[in-house]
Amino acid sequence: MHFFEDIDIGARRELGAFTFTAEDIKRFAREFDPQRFHLDEEEGRKSLFGGLAASGWHVAAVCMKLLVADGKRVRQEAIARGEEIAVWGPSPGFRELRWIRPVLAGDTIRFFNVVETKRTSEKRPEWGILQARNTGINQRGEQVFSFLATAFVPRRKVG
Amino acid sequence: MHFFEDIDIGARRELGAFTFTAEDIKRFAREFDPQRFHLDEEEGRKSLFGGLAASGWHVAAVCMKLLVADGKRVRQEAIARGEEIAVWGPSPGFRELRWIRPVLAGDTIRFFNVVETKRTSEKRPEWGILQARNTGINQRGEQVFSFLATAFVPRRKVG
Repeated sequence: MHFFEDIDIGARRELGAFTFTAEDIKRFAREFDPQRFHLDEEEGRKSLFGGLAASGWHVAAVCMKLLVADGKRVRQEAIARGEEIAVWGPSPGFRELRWIRPVLAGDTIRFFNVVETKRTSEKRPEWGILQARNTGINQRGEQVFSFLATAFVPRRKVG
Repeated sequence: MHFFEDIDIGARRELGAFTFTAEDIKRFAREFDPQRFHLDEEEGRKSLFGGLAASGWHVAAVCMKLLVADGKRVRQEAIARGEEIAVWGPSPGFRELRWIRPVLAGDTIRFFNVVETKRTSEKRPEWGILQARNTGINQRGEQVFSFLATAFVPRRKVG
């Protein structure tokens, strides 16, 4: 993980891709979001989604999975270079969570992370506050999902 | 499900309660959010959370599960009374998603839904637009989670 000073506004990372199978969609929906258009192909086709659609919370959870995996990769690369590791604080929340288009069975979503703003914390000078937008794009290049994440990131030097 | 005209601002429903076991927390985390404080009691205790903490996305997914179950109950009660059933549109997204306090293993969270605003849609006069805040409260009465949901709700009469 990077320190606050090492992060550039506009920096964009590809987090990875995930293909939502019908089986994945139904399994998540049975446990957390058992609405008919998330459980059955025919019901999905008859719905506004036009097909078996992943729960929006499933899309968010998969994005989280890829964010965590990306964080681990960044951390391991830093360790391999012998750099000091920054331990990020927990996220206080997310804003502007949007499901823009349905994610249907068979869709492959690529997720991206773009840093939008950074500022230092007045109350806690050892921390910076970062806002980054996480976005999902389907195989046709259409945006399907996005949210703005806030994170506490440690500063390299406390001044 | 209710029609737009039947919904009162300020209406509050209890959606139900859920106890987050250590097993539930780890199982969700292994699949979607494998960070150490969601996977291991000792790592949780050493973290800012102070214990094995549920992924925020797990808390959100459980809230969704209870929202869907509540919607089904409301629908079945309406059917039992012989009333016409309103079919709600899909949610275009959520705002102000906040994880206010950690949810630790053994915590029981009660979820509530409160209607905050309603207005008719200019573009689609057959629909109303509802905003409702979903909130999770732990066994000590502390708010742990909330988000503001937007929903399209059909109107009883098209004007």
